[in-house]
Order: sequence, then C-alpha cells, then structure tokens
Amino acid sequence: MTFIESLKQRWNQSRSLLCVGLDPDINRIPESIRNSKTCFYDFCTAIVDATAQYACSFKPQIAYFASRAAESELEGIIEYIHKNYPDIPVILDAKRGDIGSTAKHYAKEAFERFQADAVTLSPYMGFDSVEPYLEYEDKGAILLCRTSNRGGNDIQMLQVDGKPIYQRVAELASGPWNLNGQLGLVVGATYPNEIAQVRAIVGDMPLLVPGVGAQGGDINACVNAGITADRCGMMINSSRAILYASSGEDFREAAANVAKQTRDAINTARGL
Amino acid sequence: MTFIESLKQRWNQSRSLLCVGLDPDINRIPESIRNSKTCFYDFCTAIVDATAQYACSFKPQIAYFASRAAESELEGIIEYIHKNYPDIPVILDAKRGDIGSTAKHYAKEAFERFQADAVTLSPYMGFDSVEPYLEYEDKGAILLCRTSNRGGNDIQMLQVDGKPIYQRVAELASGPWNLNGQLGLVVGATYPNEIAQVRAIVGDMPLLVPGVGAQGGDINACVNAGITADRCGMMINSSRAILYASSGEDFREAAANVAKQTRDAINTARGL
Repeated sequence: MTFIESLKQRWNQSRSLLCVGLDPDINRIPESIRNSKTCFYDFCTAIVDATAQYACSFKPQIAYFASRAAESELEGIIEYIHKNYPDIPVILDAKRGDIGSTAKHYAKEAFERFQADAVTLSPYMGFDSVEPYLEYEDKGAILLCRTSNRGGNDIQMLQVDGKPIYQRVAELASGPWNLNGQLGLVVGATYPNEIAQVRAIVGDMPLLVPGVGAQGGDINACVNAGITADRCGMMINSSRAILYASSGEDFREAAANVAKQTRDAINTARGL
Repeated sequence: MTFIESLKQRWNQSRSLLCVGLDPDINRIPESIRNSKTCFYDFCTAIVDATAQYACSFKPQIAYFASRAAESELEGIIEYIHKNYPDIPVILDAKRGDIGSTAKHYAKEAFERFQADAVTLSPYMGFDSVEPYLEYEDKGAILLCRTSNRGGNDIQMLQVDGKPIYQRVAELASGPWNLNGQLGLVVGATYPNEIAQVRAIVGDMPLLVPGVGAQGGDINACVNAGITADRCGMMINSSRAILYASSGEDFREAAANVAKQTRDAINTARGL
C-alpha cells in the first residue's frame, strides 16, 4: 500500500483528520521523564499511546532530535509506531531540499534509516530536488507551499504573472511534478483563504495543515477551506497544544483530551 | 572572530578561494578504508590533511552522514578540523529551512552540536526562518539563491516585477535580512552571468559557488563574474573531483593534486 492509500484508509477508519506532531522539547517534557536517558523516546511513545486512537498520522519533527543527537530515539519512536499502530502513517518533518546524489542520501535517511512513510520537502531547488524521493514508490513527499509564519510572505507571496508563488508551487506539485501521485502540500492554517486557493488548484491532493492549536489557526475556517468532496483530504497538525497540555504526571490524559477535542472540533467542522 | 572575518583572513593567508566539499560516499571511498567502522571519519580527515593547505574552507554535506547514521563521525571530522586547522572555517551544508522553535533547534544542531562556523539555509520560508541563526553572532548563514541544477529554473527563474526570484533573494539577503552582516549566498558555477547579476546586487557579500569540478562549471567564467574588488568574495566549492580523484591507495596525493590545480586555476583566473 502506498503512503497516500494508507492515509486515505486511515482517514476513513479513524474518522480523524488530526495529525499529532512530535516535537519533544527537553525543557517542556514532564520532570518524571526528563532525567531518563531515553527521555524523548519515553515521552513520545507515551504521547503516541495516549493519542493514537484520535490520530490519522504522526509527524515527528527531526530538528528537535538532531539538536540533542537523539536520532536513535527518533528511529525507535517510528519503529514503535509501525509496530503498535501499523495503520497510522508517519511523516518525517525535515523540509529537506537538495539535488542529485545529495537528495538521494536525504531520501535514504528518511525512508530507509528512519522508515518514514512520507517526508516534508522545500521546493526552492525545483523538480530534480523532489524526483529522488519519488523513486520510493510506496512513499510520499509533502512540499512546502504556503507556510503559516510571518515571514512566509517574503518569498511565497511574490507575484508571478499576477499570482503568488505559492500557487505556482501548487500548480507544479499537482501537475508536472506529481508523476506517480505521491505528492502532498504544506499549507498553513492561519490563511484559510489561501488553503481554499490551493485546494482549487490541486484537486483532492492531501494537504498537511500546521498552525492550529498553539499557533492559533481557526479549525472551522481551515476545514471549510480545505476539505475535499468526500470530507477528507487534510492532515491538520497540532503539536505543542497536545504534547504540553499538562506538564504534570497527568500529561498522558491531558494530551489524549486535547487530541480528542481537536479531532472532534475538526469533525464538527466537516459535518460528521 | 566572526565567520566572515575568519573567512576573509583565511582568503588572504591561504591565497585560496577553494572550498573543499566533504561528501563521503561509501561506494566511492578507497577499499582500504571502506571496511573501517569509522570509514567516513578516516576518509574525510585524510582528505582534510591532504588538501588543507589549498583550502579556504571545508564544507561537509550532512546528507551523506545522515543516510548512514554517521552523525558522530561528522562531529569528529569538524572537531578534527578545528583542532588541527583552526584558521579554516567549516560550513555545514544542510540547507535547512524552518521557523520559530524548530529553526532554533536546527541552529543548535549546526552551531552547538556540530560546531560549524556557518550553515547553508533555504530562503523559501522567509526571514523568520533565517533569524534564529543570526542569534549566534559569530556564526554565518549562507542562503540558497541561484542553484546549479537543472530544476533550479523551476522556482528561482520565475519573474517578479521583471526580475527573477533569485535576484529578489539576493536583494533581501544583502538588505533587510542581513542585520549583522552574517549572511552569504549560494550561487551555482554553471550560470556565470547570474553570478555577475548577484554580485552586482550584494556588494562584497561572500558567495559559495558549487558546480565546478564534477558538475562542469567554468572556473574562469565564474571567477570573472563573481570576484570582488579585492579579488576575493568567493568560496568556489569542489567535492567529488577532489574526493574521488583516485579510488586507489594514492587517493591522498591525487586529492591534493586536484585541490592544488583547482586553487591555482582560480588564482590564475583572478590574476594572482
């Protein structure tokens, strides 16, 4: 089964469009875990167990692991998800962008070393920076399109032939670049109008939507803007609002509650 | 001393604009080293010793290490360079691009974990994806501007107000984004005219120029296009042509010879 197929199956089976982001920050994880030598593994697998029933996907962010030389814990977390929740796809948030033989090595990192089902990429270097990932036919690649940060305007909103660049990226990713239907796009939750613009361009391509929860994006607005005809098509990501719902010993229950509430709010917004 | 200051000092002291790229590929390194448990460390430190006298900088590419879970060898290589060649700055080629707390973690990875003097970044997410790196005031950040690959045209050559996007990136990086003079730009050697366009925009900002050697860029053309008034301003990178100059036991001498020839060709082109 390909990444996109397993994602669609998971959307249906779980009745959830919630993607749970795994961004472990040593300063914010509960004290009882913080002193463990494998504290990221312990924390993230606890979050996975607490939230899996509410999740359509998990998205570990590699920077949090790389800054602490904790790649082996990241390997372990993804292995744990695959073993215990084989129906839940894992997206490695790495935003890689390079070419030729270098891109092949990044693809190997994401798909062979970390066993991710999909990876996030930057489009700045063009198609041949995406192509090496497509050689893994069962995997997915999710390209940055319109991001939810302040500086997202700096490049993405520059006008080309009367249209912003992020729309050109959406056209390329849903057209000539999408050779085998493996691509998705990142579109921030803070700009619902632009989610709608992207949706109009890309058909039912999966959108990864960060920016709800701690970043304040409006769930109703972004669901209405981005939902497909079958009321799917989105992975709406929440990381910190779930991970750090409580800094106490009840962090598992608190994370589960926020994940459930977020899933439910998304489902209400899409009329389920 | 800041990255830019140490780079300028190294340019002068070494009479070299050659950046030696460290892209270790297990299939191409000599057999005598290949079976070592620390083969990347052994190979790269041998290359460093062989080429240091001809180099203004070293540029390890992290993907080659990440695909083999060899980050600890990369840490060791950079430590080795700092210890044995303290005057030679090290650029971690990582092309990171993310925002806020995630970018802080990537900056920590590059500057604290790996102890790089500078890191390459993608500009697609805008200024706040660059800003966290600038908090390390003695470090540098080198942004992708115009890349030497085929697909580099896909985004970088889109026209905004009659100018290609790569020129807008050059304007931003040399203007409002360059708060403390810590930025440089990546401009591929295969487009000398565009190196000249970038140089006209950015003053004497350092340019990292990949694409000579294995990628076939013309040294004379790119030096003429990118050199500053003081005949510096460029780190002209060669990786594979040096690293794999010989696959035999004479790889050190072969690498040294190619590094010397490349340095000399650059110096001839700049009239030294």
